[in-house]
Amino acid sequence: VLIVDKVQDIQDMARGAVLLGTGGGGDPYIGELFLRAQVRKGRYATIIPCETIADDAFVLSIAGIGAPTVIIEQLISERTLLRVLARAEAFYGRRVDALISAEIGGANSLIPLALGAISGTPVLDADGVGRAVPHIEMTTFSIYGCNATPGFVMDDSGNVVTLEAADDHTAEELCRAVVGTMGAMALGAFYPMTGRQVKAFAVQRTLTQSLEIGRCIRAAREGVGDIFTELVTYLNQRDGRHASILFDGKVVDVTHETRDGWHFGRVTLAGLSNPDDECVVEIQNEFLTARVNGRTVVLMPDLISILDRESGEPLTGEMLAYGQRVKVLGYGADPMLRRPESLDVLGPRMFGIDEDFRPVEDLVAAAGL
Amino acid sequence: VLIVDKVQDIQDMARGAVLLGTGGGGDPYIGELFLRAQVRKGRYATIIPCETIADDAFVLSIAGIGAPTVIIEQLISERTLLRVLARAEAFYGRRVDALISAEIGGANSLIPLALGAISGTPVLDADGVGRAVPHIEMTTFSIYGCNATPGFVMDDSGNVVTLEAADDHTAEELCRAVVGTMGAMALGAFYPMTGRQVKAFAVQRTLTQSLEIGRCIRAAREGVGDIFTELVTYLNQRDGRHASILFDGKVVDVTHETRDGWHFGRVTLAGLSNPDDECVVEIQNEFLTARVNGRTVVLMPDLISILDRESGEPLTGEMLAYGQRVKVLGYGADPMLRRPESLDVLGPRMFGIDEDFRPVEDLVAAAGL
Repeated sequence: VLIVDKVQDIQDMARGAVLLGTGGGGDPYIGELFLRAQVRKGRYATIIPCETIADDAFVLSIAGIGAPTVIIEQLISERTLLRVLARAEAFYGRRVDALISAEIGGANSLIPLALGAISGTPVLDADGVGRAVPHIEMTTFSIYGCNATPGFVMDDSGNVVTLEAADDHTAEELCRAVVGTMGAMALGAFYPMTGRQVKAFAVQRTLTQSLEIGRCIRAAREGVGDIFTELVTYLNQRDGRHASILFDGKVVDVTHETRDGWHFGRVTLAGLSNPDDECVVEIQNEFLTARVNGRTVVLMPDLISILDRESGEPLTGEMLAYGQRVKVLGYGADPMLRRPESLDVLGPRMFGIDEDFRPVEDLVAAAGL
Repeated sequence: VLIVDKVQDIQDMARGAVLLGTGGGGDPYIGELFLRAQVRKGRYATIIPCETIADDAFVLSIAGIGAPTVIIEQLISERTLLRVLARAEAFYGRRVDALISAEIGGANSLIPLALGAISGTPVLDADGVGRAVPHIEMTTFSIYGCNATPGFVMDDSGNVVTLEAADDHTAEELCRAVVGTMGAMALGAFYPMTGRQVKAFAVQRTLTQSLEIGRCIRAAREGVGDIFTELVTYLNQRDGRHASILFDGKVVDVTHETRDGWHFGRVTLAGLSNPDDECVVEIQNEFLTARVNGRTVVLMPDLISILDRESGEPLTGEMLAYGQRVKVLGYGADPMLRRPESLDVLGPRMFGIDEDFRPVEDLVAAAGL
């Protein structure tokens, strides 16, 4: 059990959530401010491991949905968050025993903690993907048969839309259409699950992982060691997932395009030690692929993070701008995401990339990095 | 009480519904075929006047929503219609005592009758506008405070979306977004009302009116008199609403444009006796205005109908094509629609027409027609 009652822990957790957001998921800054305000009032969020809850406990995911910048500026009020919880308990006809984040990466890592701090509901140390993904049906919950609906979205004007979708792909489309009408900002309750389901299907220990990542970067920044060496060491010693720095360069080109409700883009980096070296990262909300001198070095669902090369601060896709000096981190996805049934849903081909998934550790070795 | 068990009555009713559809509302032809098939199986629909139901009766509007051509080709199956009713009774927690059409004009005039014929639920001889309108919030139900929601839409793939909107304008927008995602075809249950409410706020006797209009045109066509003389005589003797033929001409130009989910257009007619005479009808789903030689002769919410000049068959906006010989009918709206609170919602300015509403009878007299 972890009690979140310190401002520094919240800042560290938000920093880690941006790294795991792999360019997408939205900036958790406003959520961070909200949670910090709760802590200053003497409130705290309680993070518990999935193993500690009963098999028949009722677990629910509460999330901000829509354009992240709009949601977190407009909708985080105590009143609204409590309304969502009260409505959810009435709708599902039972008390919510624990909250869970649908995706740890980005803004929605902190919404369940914010609600947990106000309502006293514990938050599970887990999420549905261990990173950020652009679609509802790309969570491990969906992949392993826990449906996102019945669920609902509500806005601050009194509109409530309940969705019972035939599948989570349709849930995603209906949700997107409804939230667009609501002004691209709403709060939602989805993925009603049991304790048994989250033990089996959630990606475990990701809230503590965000905290530890953020803490590691901060501690290294304040210390004398190299930030990236310490970060890579931390990530590598955690459950055998590969992490390495793939590129050290500066941004020489960035394109951003909003199309069909998505953020598409591409960032091109030139090497700092050798300006002829080039790294290209493709973006669809999240960073999808990284290629160094034309060779693919990371593919979805493995994680790519782009960090400021001086401060080690992880950057979202929207933050990238010409001239920034950055390092590119490759990080193996949780093993659950690399299983065939997961790759069918969030492998590279689902994003229009004409390559089969290969693990970052193999790609890096093949590229001689 | 009127029993609908004759094919000819169904055909007549559909014809009348197209006239009252004032160019929009969709072609009721497939609904007509479905209802005729029910009648051939020995089933019938029962139409009852609002006065005969109890004040605390539960009344509901069941409608096809989306692109009318798609809905009526895809969704009218007995199974689907019965599913909507069963779901509605479960959702509202009570038996539906009577069905009502939200708008009599066009395709949705026959959906409640179709469901009534299968389920035995009576259908009220009334609707929410006495014509067709392009928005949920433009019915007299909405204008007089009976909300469209809570209600729901469902498609044939098992998706159900429940809407609780802060107001009916938002209900319209949410519904449009959801039905678009459902492939532009869905069935919905809206406007949960009491018997007392429909007695006070519905436009009365509009199903029998459709039947009588259709019957009048058919009888005149089969007889020796002039179709339009007999139609105008019938309409004028019914509760004092003005009806007259405003133009007799041929279509010399038609524009159709689909924009923001609406059908916009304009039809230009040249006079048959004097080709210099011109009549222009503006379309936004429905016919909005008619102008003869530059003078406005009909404005929303008064009705405009364009009819084939030989057969007297009323035509929808989509049916209009170059070279057709037609007559233009102007017909005063039900007095409820001419009240200030109604004109605030469906007067000409709500459609971007820079004129105040004036009754068709005044405009026709001023134009010397």
